[in-house]
Amino acid sequence: MKILFIGDIVGEPGRRYVGEILDQMLPEMQPDLVVANAENATRGRGLSRRSAEELYDAGVEILTMGNHTWDQRQIFEFIDDDMRIVRPANYPQGTPGRGFTVVRVGKQEVLIINVMGRTFLSTLDCPFEAVEKILADHPQIRHVLVDMHAEVTSEKLGMGWAFAGKVSAVLGTHTHVPTADARILPGGTAYISDVGMVGPHDGILGMKREQVIRRMRTQLPTKFEVADGPRQFCAVMLELDDESGKAVRIEQVHYEEPST
Amino acid sequence: MKILFIGDIVGEPGRRYVGEILDQMLPEMQPDLVVANAENATRGRGLSRRSAEELYDAGVEILTMGNHTWDQRQIFEFIDDDMRIVRPANYPQGTPGRGFTVVRVGKQEVLIINVMGRTFLSTLDCPFEAVEKILADHPQIRHVLVDMHAEVTSEKLGMGWAFAGKVSAVLGTHTHVPTADARILPGGTAYISDVGMVGPHDGILGMKREQVIRRMRTQLPTKFEVADGPRQFCAVMLELDDESGKAVRIEQVHYEEPST
Amino acid sequence: MKILFIGDIVGEPGRRYVGEILDQMLPEMQPDLVVANAENATRGRGLSRRSAEELYDAGVEILTMGNHTWDQRQIFEFIDDDMRIVRPANYPQGTPGRGFTVVRVGKQEVLIINVMGRTFLSTLDCPFEAVEKILADHPQIRHVLVDMHAEVTSEKLGMGWAFAGKVSAVLGTHTHVPTADARILPGGTAYISDVGMVGPHDGILGMKREQVIRRMRTQLPTKFEVADGPRQFCAVMLELDDESGKAVRIEQVHYEEPST
Amino acid sequence: MKILFIGDIVGEPGRRYVGEILDQMLPEMQPDLVVANAENATRGRGLSRRSAEELYDAGVEILTMGNHTWDQRQIFEFIDDDMRIVRPANYPQGTPGRGFTVVRVGKQEVLIINVMGRTFLSTLDCPFEAVEKILADHPQIRHVLVDMHAEVTSEKLGMGWAFAGKVSAVLGTHTHVPTADARILPGGTAYISDVGMVGPHDGILGMKREQVIRRMRTQLPTKFEVADGPRQFCAVMLELDDESGKAVRIEQVHYEEPST
Ligand SMILES: [Fe+2]
Ligand SMILES: [Fe+2]
Ligand SMILES: [Fe+2]
Ligand SMILES: [Fe+2]
Ligand SMILES: [Fe+2]
Ligand SMILES: [Fe+2]
Ligand SMILES: [Fe+2]
Ligand SMILES: [Fe+2]
Repeated sequence: MKILFIGDIVGEPGRRYVGEILDQMLPEMQPDLVVANAENATRGRGLSRRSAEELYDAGVEILTMGNHTWDQRQIFEFIDDDMRIVRPANYPQGTPGRGFTVVRVGKQEVLIINVMGRTFLSTLDCPFEAVEKILADHPQIRHVLVDMHAEVTSEKLGMGWAFAGKVSAVLGTHTHVPTADARILPGGTAYISDVGMVGPHDGILGMKREQVIRRMRTQLPTKFEVADGPRQFCAVMLELDDESGKAVRIEQVHYEEPST
Repeated sequence: MKILFIGDIVGEPGRRYVGEILDQMLPEMQPDLVVANAENATRGRGLSRRSAEELYDAGVEILTMGNHTWDQRQIFEFIDDDMRIVRPANYPQGTPGRGFTVVRVGKQEVLIINVMGRTFLSTLDCPFEAVEKILADHPQIRHVLVDMHAEVTSEKLGMGWAFAGKVSAVLGTHTHVPTADARILPGGTAYISDVGMVGPHDGILGMKREQVIRRMRTQLPTKFEVADGPRQFCAVMLELDDESGKAVRIEQVHYEEPST
Repeated sequence: MKILFIGDIVGEPGRRYVGEILDQMLPEMQPDLVVANAENATRGRGLSRRSAEELYDAGVEILTMGNHTWDQRQIFEFIDDDMRIVRPANYPQGTPGRGFTVVRVGKQEVLIINVMGRTFLSTLDCPFEAVEKILADHPQIRHVLVDMHAEVTSEKLGMGWAFAGKVSAVLGTHTHVPTADARILPGGTAYISDVGMVGPHDGILGMKREQVIRRMRTQLPTKFEVADGPRQFCAVMLELDDESGKAVRIEQVHYEEPST
Repeated sequence: MKILFIGDIVGEPGRRYVGEILDQMLPEMQPDLVVANAENATRGRGLSRRSAEELYDAGVEILTMGNHTWDQRQIFEFIDDDMRIVRPANYPQGTPGRGFTVVRVGKQEVLIINVMGRTFLSTLDCPFEAVEKILADHPQIRHVLVDMHAEVTSEKLGMGWAFAGKVSAVLGTHTHVPTADARILPGGTAYISDVGMVGPHDGILGMKREQVIRRMRTQLPTKFEVADGPRQFCAVMLELDDESGKAVRIEQVHYEEPST
């Protein structure tokens, strides 16, 4: 089974570029499932219904989220009903939406989990316990993907090693910079600290760089807008054993337009 | 001019592996200068005189530091006298040691600066102003390397873009995970968000993974020790124009021993 | 029922002063129960068995803890067996010790809970849920004390108002500075944002002030030692209705030796 | 010389109550100078021109700020021209407005400084160095007030002790909860860790308590609005020696309306 996992999609440039790249890639690479992190899909913050539809139309089947889950308030109107959207599972009980979803791929069921790290992020429940509980509730599923949305590498590596041999993949998101540490951990768990992002290549995390630098240097309030210009696409292609769910391959997929 | 910059060296396994790799690489690749981040060189925390000597013997010429600068207290005995050690320049005025150093390479002088990010790290002076001031004090030097030791990608990218065209390279350290975003920014500034580390490959940031996971999951005090087993080596090779100091090439150098 | 709750006791000066003050106070004020926060009782960090014994001998009956719970490692040897020690209830499941204890006072049972805030402190489970669960498990107890060990006033006030009318008292600890906001919240819940500390009066949080200021100003590693000199004693005296458990009075108790 | 310093004024209820209380107090207590922290004066966040005018009309002569300085964007239009507004002095160089102001009171000049702590707040320059520099530039002024706007008690006490004997007063703001530690430090420096706030008494930091608790418990985005109901007024009255500027008295001034 081939799964394409796309990193944080940033704003309209990100959504558009996902569409263009998938148009090329899908016929050629034929993944069995396409998942993407969509926490920045709408103007760099959150996910509107229209942005979600655009991504579905482009070929993305499941959308994971992160610390920007609620930034577009209209998500409260559709997150409960749209089984294709997964927000961090370690939010407090009673939080709208779901922390995991199950999707049928051929004869297999695939369990997709989203969790959030706690170091330098929100004060949430333990992400390790959250994953453990979801796994315990789905003992029959062997194809399991974890999107570990976190700031620090130690917490991401901790999640990877803690569930090595127990899930098919632990894929980091949130920093918007792809890491060069993709590997298969012992027991057949694909791992990468960060998949990277899809969006403007010459901004900072996809936003206009002058604005980000101004805020850093002056500490003055500064509006952040999605940048223009050339774009990059960061994803990983996973290959899982159909029977066992174990990862046999993880490969980074990078596209980028030339800088002007 | 070719400069090899090696990421955070972790403990004895890291120091040893640096020696082994440089024995192979130096005759072959012949860099004109070898710089390494040594903030974790002694038992994963700080830098003893003996560890520094080991690294000099191995061929490293300049050592940069970071948030672990003072973890081995004996460094106070030699940091003022050893011009090859550079600690973050944005420490408060009066801090022992120096925030930059100048080294002659052939006919050129190379300025090496170490600064630390502030987001989720120490409460320090502005790293942007620190770099600006050092540059203003050395208008004649065109070959300038900045080791930006920081937690978050936005602050590292901010430093890269703020000094694009003004320094030869901005190289991120601290997260111990190499990123896949090496590039030449406009104006001839080599950039990477994190060079990665040298040390045990199957630990977490070079430390024993069971210990790190235990602390994360239990919040109990847990001693962290440098891990055993196969090792990795992460560095970047820079090529700077001899005349202008502008970067013409940045290439990641990764070695790793097979996991058992 | 009269309960004396003493704020964070710092080091030997704190333990001694608790003994001296209780010698005077107990005969006179005759509280029915004496509780103290002991997270800093041993050299400013954690609680040794000997320090605990000293406090019991002085007349303290229950010891609550906080972020320094584990700083003296020997506590792991006795915390499971000593029912008089209560550490934060929102530590992960399986943590040694207990998050609440029940003590008989005359004809009544008193439930004493310790929880820790999360903002700018450890990554723990939700303190609100922790308190709710303990209350649900003890529906018959009407005399309930919550030691809310937290950094920020908003989280302490949040705990106070969330359980106003449901517990006898929410008493803040951790900042080592007594607040001037003691009051009875609607429904009969005594509240104060911070009880303050017992220990050296002319230090910073009980530690030598030169050391604390040096670290702040230089960012250099600096050993913190418990200060000398005049001492202060900060506590609150509660009066609870015997029948209903509702608070009818909260009064700050401050003693201090003249500064030299 | 008598100076009344009023803690963080929150929203319209805070502004109104300042007016009502000053109407009563001023004729009676006759302070020579009235200073107030106004960072929350407009809808709980920042300071509009109209709110500033209201406070001036009420009798406040100097307004200090804090982390909410820029929350009402119109402040950029008038902060440079209004010498009565003081924002944190340790903002980056080039920041609009001023970090201190000098006001004539009878035959004396009074220097009023605002600085911000860095622990768990913004990444700013060193507040200790900022105060030192301002003092060095005004060697002739002996009446000096420092509003230390900070989160943690250690940093506030550090500022107090570092400048004990060098300034007339170090007064903490920001937590909105008055502390019970007002004292004169050696050398004649009045000190309090937090003056407290003026605003709704039954909210959390002046905001509607249901909203604050909801956000804490659910981590969902929640609008915070200034609370209604009974109000409190927290201030300190200082008495400084006319000649030397040394503090001879600090007294808390609390008013509050009965809770319903
Ligand atoms: Fe994120
Ligand atoms: Fe993101
Ligand atoms: Fe490091
Ligand atoms: Fe580091
Ligand atoms: Fe404490
Ligand atoms: Fe504490
Ligand atoms: Fe405030
Ligand atoms: Fe504030």
